[in-house]
Amino acid sequence: MKRIADSTVRRLSLYLRFLEDFEKRGIGTISSDELAARGGTTSAQVRKDLSFFGSFGKRGLGYSVAELAARLRQILGLEREWQVIIIGAGKIGAALAQYHGFAQRGFRIVAVYDSDPAKVGRSVDGLVIQALDSLPDEVKHQPADIAVLAVPATSAQEVADMVVKAGIRAILNFAPHQLQVPDTVAVKAVNMAMELEGLSFALTNG
Amino acid sequence: MKRIADSTVRRLSLYLRFLEDFEKRGIGTISSDELAARGGTTSAQVRKDLSFFGSFGKRGLGYSVAELAARLRQILGLEREWQVIIIGAGKIGAALAQYHGFAQRGFRIVAVYDSDPAKVGRSVDGLVIQALDSLPDEVKHQPADIAVLAVPATSAQEVADMVVKAGIRAILNFAPHQLQVPDTVAVKAVNMAMELEGLSFALTNG
Repeated sequence: MKRIADSTVRRLSLYLRFLEDFEKRGIGTISSDELAARGGTTSAQVRKDLSFFGSFGKRGLGYSVAELAARLRQILGLEREWQVIIIGAGKIGAALAQYHGFAQRGFRIVAVYDSDPAKVGRSVDGLVIQALDSLPDEVKHQPADIAVLAVPATSAQEVADMVVKAGIRAILNFAPHQLQVPDTVAVKAVNMAMELEGLSFALTNG
Repeated sequence: MKRIADSTVRRLSLYLRFLEDFEKRGIGTISSDELAARGGTTSAQVRKDLSFFGSFGKRGLGYSVAELAARLRQILGLEREWQVIIIGAGKIGAALAQYHGFAQRGFRIVAVYDSDPAKVGRSVDGLVIQALDSLPDEVKHQPADIAVLAVPATSAQEVADMVVKAGIRAILNFAPHQLQVPDTVAVKAVNMAMELEGLSFALTNG
């Protein structure tokens, strides 16, 4: 398959949300215009985004909401459950561990790790915090697909190296640090400070 | 000024982080190659990104780390303090209120709001949670620059409308909902579920 841009994948996620909303409201078919209007984009963009993945909809009839939603879930890999581990049981890590929205989308949090002995053994939302040192062994017994890094910037690279070595191929990074990982590992970053700087830039430059 | 792409602004934030790291390590000058290497981009991209904002560096001598960092702080609007309010004192909102990394970058959290009477009057990191209804009046007395929305998707648009009406021109949205706001209001979204879907897409499509 052709390499798909991150921005395309983000729009697919967005389209899926709109389609699920349409499904709930009992809407059977929609046009690319309607999908575009909800997503703040153009119908040409919607058709282009979907064209990467084959042929959808019937000319003049629009898309079947249920069919397109099912196909997008398949494309996005949401038809299965993914095992997620959280590393770092600080405020952000603990908030994520307690957030049930992920499980609803098929991302099941199976373990929480921390390097602080004072935190190890405590419980977050039913999960006992485990020692970071034990991660390589634990992952052998209970494989993990995605590691969420909620650690300080100074230890992010070291933790990422450990995660990659343990065979985990996807990282969601909350640490304000640009990770270096092999090409075979997917990384997404959530950098709240950088988003705030995007806003201060907009406020400053008008 | 020419409209600057979001991706450019994000890279500027990233360059600033690297420059601050270089400053701490006592490095006086760097080349666009070095900056590019740290950011996983090309020196041509670095030069293009910076060219939007005038002339930097001397051919063959590279950039002065301190000067370029100062200029980027100015461009990004980080030379002043921004007043931030958090709306929604749930797990994510409370974690954000307690996170001191924002204040270090000049984003000062001045108020936390919630619509739940059971939460109003409680304290989060020294800030008393205020009733959401009181926001328009409060903002008149203590102006806010940026509103962080940590509310459920179902109430996000309503809260955004309230915020915009109160004169706030920048929103950081944590709710999984595409907000509709006037062109004069800047919005950035942090959507952790969508980032996870980006990872499941990558894991599924190799």
